[in-house]
Amino acid sequence: MKVEKAVITAAGANQRMLPLQTVIDRDGTEKPVLTILIEEALSAGVEEVCVVVWPGDQGRYEQAAERHAHRVRFIPQGQPLGYGGAILAAREFTAGQPFLHLVGDHLYVTRDVKTCAQRLMECAAREECAVSAVQITREGMLSHFGAVGGRRVPGHRDLYRIETVLEKPTPTQAEQQLMVSGIRAGSYLCFFGMHVFTPNVMDLLSAAAGNHGNPVPLTPVLASLGQREQYLALVEADHRYDIGERYGLLMAQFALALNGRDRNDVLARLVELLASREISLPSGGDR
Amino acid sequence: MKVEKAVITAAGANQRMLPLQTVIDRDGTEKPVLTILIEEALSAGVEEVCVVVWPGDQGRYEQAAERHAHRVRFIPQGQPLGYGGAILAAREFTAGQPFLHLVGDHLYVTRDVKTCAQRLMECAAREECAVSAVQITREGMLSHFGAVGGRRVPGHRDLYRIETVLEKPTPTQAEQQLMVSGIRAGSYLCFFGMHVFTPNVMDLLSAAAGNHGNPVPLTPVLASLGQREQYLALVEADHRYDIGERYGLLMAQFALALNGRDRNDVLARLVELLASREISLPSGGDR
Repeated sequence: MKVEKAVITAAGANQRMLPLQTVIDRDGTEKPVLTILIEEALSAGVEEVCVVVWPGDQGRYEQAAERHAHRVRFIPQGQPLGYGGAILAAREFTAGQPFLHLVGDHLYVTRDVKTCAQRLMECAAREECAVSAVQITREGMLSHFGAVGGRRVPGHRDLYRIETVLEKPTPTQAEQQLMVSGIRAGSYLCFFGMHVFTPNVMDLLSAAAGNHGNPVPLTPVLASLGQREQYLALVEADHRYDIGERYGLLMAQFALALNGRDRNDVLARLVELLASREISLPSGGDR
Repeated sequence: MKVEKAVITAAGANQRMLPLQTVIDRDGTEKPVLTILIEEALSAGVEEVCVVVWPGDQGRYEQAAERHAHRVRFIPQGQPLGYGGAILAAREFTAGQPFLHLVGDHLYVTRDVKTCAQRLMECAAREECAVSAVQITREGMLSHFGAVGGRRVPGHRDLYRIETVLEKPTPTQAEQQLMVSGIRAGSYLCFFGMHVFTPNVMDLLSAAAGNHGNPVPLTPVLASLGQREQYLALVEADHRYDIGERYGLLMAQFALALNGRDRNDVLARLVELLASREISLPSGGDR
């Protein structure tokens, strides 16, 4: 299975400004978050990228795509029909082919030679099916993520066949429906914000959308995908940073700096700042 | 001397977007840098603020001033006539009165109960003259700042009478002209980016501008101010963060967080990030 297209969603009302934020990438150059995401996709072998944007944001996004703008198509999401609706807006672009999907408000920081997108694309090509990156996540964080249940693929340490998908489950729901053998009790597989989807995902989204103009959530579509065809979860050891949450951009910038060219410089400045503030570490009692 | 007005300069070509950046302030609320600067001025007793902006930026700046917009006047700097020209653009606003001046691309983070602006305003009121905040700065950083020389005001540990002002001096120039008794050799008093100016500053800037349309640098004007009237330097123990330099916004955000409500949360996340990255401290040899 060859994946030549990528879809980045950036049309959410609270999310639309995030990909335009500028950070310093690992190579020491300043870039909009959007450019880093496009480069993540291109480095994994994608030929063409589509960014689903809030109507009217195209111009700003084109600027933020910088030197990659000629390989990017910008599609406004006409109506606010949810996350699934945003992906569906790229249906004509994907033209019945599989595609890589990234959310526009996350940054993925790898410690490996390969990027997260590269590993995901290799897995999808090898297994010939849809694959979602997941991360082992503690129970207390379940309210932030979509989570999956399933069973380990024999012979693979980090690969699971997805049987169940729940959006922001409660700990009780997770315990009953998302237990995964081989993962420590109280930990679950949560979405990482990066997927390779087969064309069936578009068909299922389209069926879910119907003509009634209601928001189209993605989770039930992925749940039925897991029932119709092989759909895998690849465990990522890397980190993703939700730049929309409090201090998310700060932590993402730190992670980029600590994994890049300016590591020693930033660490030294950090140590200097901490020293000058006479900081004591948080006491156990507060947390 | 009562100071009721403040002038914030934000019209530099490389600087004009910086005050519009959003950070999380000490109180845990998200604010544009501009709002934090306006609040710094208002908290020190200023009644009315003027922000000198790039022509056409008024609308965006008005938004960024948030709930303080009604106390702020936005003046476009018609021609790019340098830093002195930007201050001079607020001449009509200051109307022959003394004023607090802040640069728009710095954030001032205090550990004290009083803000930097409050201490500066109190000093100006008490001494009845112009006062610039300065910081003791190592020789190696001289190329970034304006620096002053002078002698200590008897009876005050942190107050100097300014006799010389040089812009970004070389170490040799500094050694010959900016030695200050009581400060360790190799350290100098550099501007902090916050001043209280007397109306004479506007007169001197206006004379320096003349009619020839050339850029008006501030430094020679301050040098002649020191020769015409009492002009003091108040040493700040606090930190200012130049958000225009590499990683400046990152460090400023960090400093705000470590001095505020979210301190323990951010520290815990930082420690977690450092631990997960298996970071070793920079080795001495690299630096």
